[in-house]
Amino acid sequence: MSADPVPTEERAAIADAVGTALAEHGYERLTTAKIAAEYGKSEAGLYYYYDSKEEMIAAFLEHTAGQLGEDLAALEADDPEAALRAACEQLFLSPGEEGAGLHVAIMELLSHAPYNDTLREPLVALESATLEALADIVHAGVDQGVFREVDPRATAAFLLAAADGSTGFHVALKMDVGEDLRAGWEAYLDSLLAEG
Amino acid sequence: MSADPVPTEERAAIADAVGTALAEHGYERLTTAKIAAEYGKSEAGLYYYYDSKEEMIAAFLEHTAGQLGEDLAALEADDPEAALRAACEQLFLSPGEEGAGLHVAIMELLSHAPYNDTLREPLVALESATLEALADIVHAGVDQGVFREVDPRATAAFLLAAADGSTGFHVALKMDVGEDLRAGWEAYLDSLLAEG
Repeated sequence: MSADPVPTEERAAIADAVGTALAEHGYERLTTAKIAAEYGKSEAGLYYYYDSKEEMIAAFLEHTAGQLGEDLAALEADDPEAALRAACEQLFLSPGEEGAGLHVAIMELLSHAPYNDTLREPLVALESATLEALADIVHAGVDQGVFREVDPRATAAFLLAAADGSTGFHVALKMDVGEDLRAGWEAYLDSLLAEG
Repeated sequence: MSADPVPTEERAAIADAVGTALAEHGYERLTTAKIAAEYGKSEAGLYYYYDSKEEMIAAFLEHTAGQLGEDLAALEADDPEAALRAACEQLFLSPGEEGAGLHVAIMELLSHAPYNDTLREPLVALESATLEALADIVHAGVDQGVFREVDPRATAAFLLAAADGSTGFHVALKMDVGEDLRAGWEAYLDSLLAEG
């Protein structure tokens, strides 16, 4: 990455462009020309801030991790059950829903992580931000007696895995499992509730 | 695919070679030369049976779907709780475990499904075989009063999603979530049990 930090506004604009292009084309077919087209400026304009396509994607993932962490943290507040349901609505997407194409692209990026050092760290940041936010919500729910005495990290990890994994057979393959998946995560959330 | 059906023995040998090469190199970096190296024969030997790399992968997925379906169906028999635990042991893998690299490659293939017609159908076959087998186990458990009156398809879909999704942040990113994930799916299985 260039020595100068990227100005906040440009960073956000480029992250948006990367996200839009990734959602449409996926990772392997993504080019800086496609990112530039979404950015509305030349490729040279992108390379002024970032040295490679990989660094643009990494910056996008960091930006998204920050935003997602904030969004989910904002849910926590005073009603952990509602917060966890809202988080699941955000994380379990259906084909065609906003963000669904991006989930498929992130699944593709994850599959490249074993071979790609530039992507691994920001992907860990993204998954960790989600995991922490979910664990915080569950923790708050246990503390407030809304949830049973479940393990917040185990519950969050299992729920994040289910949300991530729904992307493959539900979004990418468009298998007819939307209602089953929703019934599945809703029943799981119900099972977390304290008796009474 | 060639008009002649591929002999069973060659089909299995080529499927094994594709699986080994996929687990090591992933999909994007997979070449027919790498498959041929695992097959122990020339690339011409592969092209005698299949017209393209995509068709070799499709044949591998079909072979694996059949095998996985059989393996999981064999578990069902007389102890649904043990069968479901055994299925989860097979589906939730840790980095370095046998099959873990293949799970990452299948995640990569899933991410290409929206753009790749040759891969979509055998991937649906693979995911459906797993889903059906899990649903059958849960169904048997509900029938025998071992599990609560849960919805077998919803339970199976949620569990398959969690297993598939564990591949990204656990196997590909190697995040330190192995114990949390295990605790998560074990607690979920416990929550399915009929009060006793």
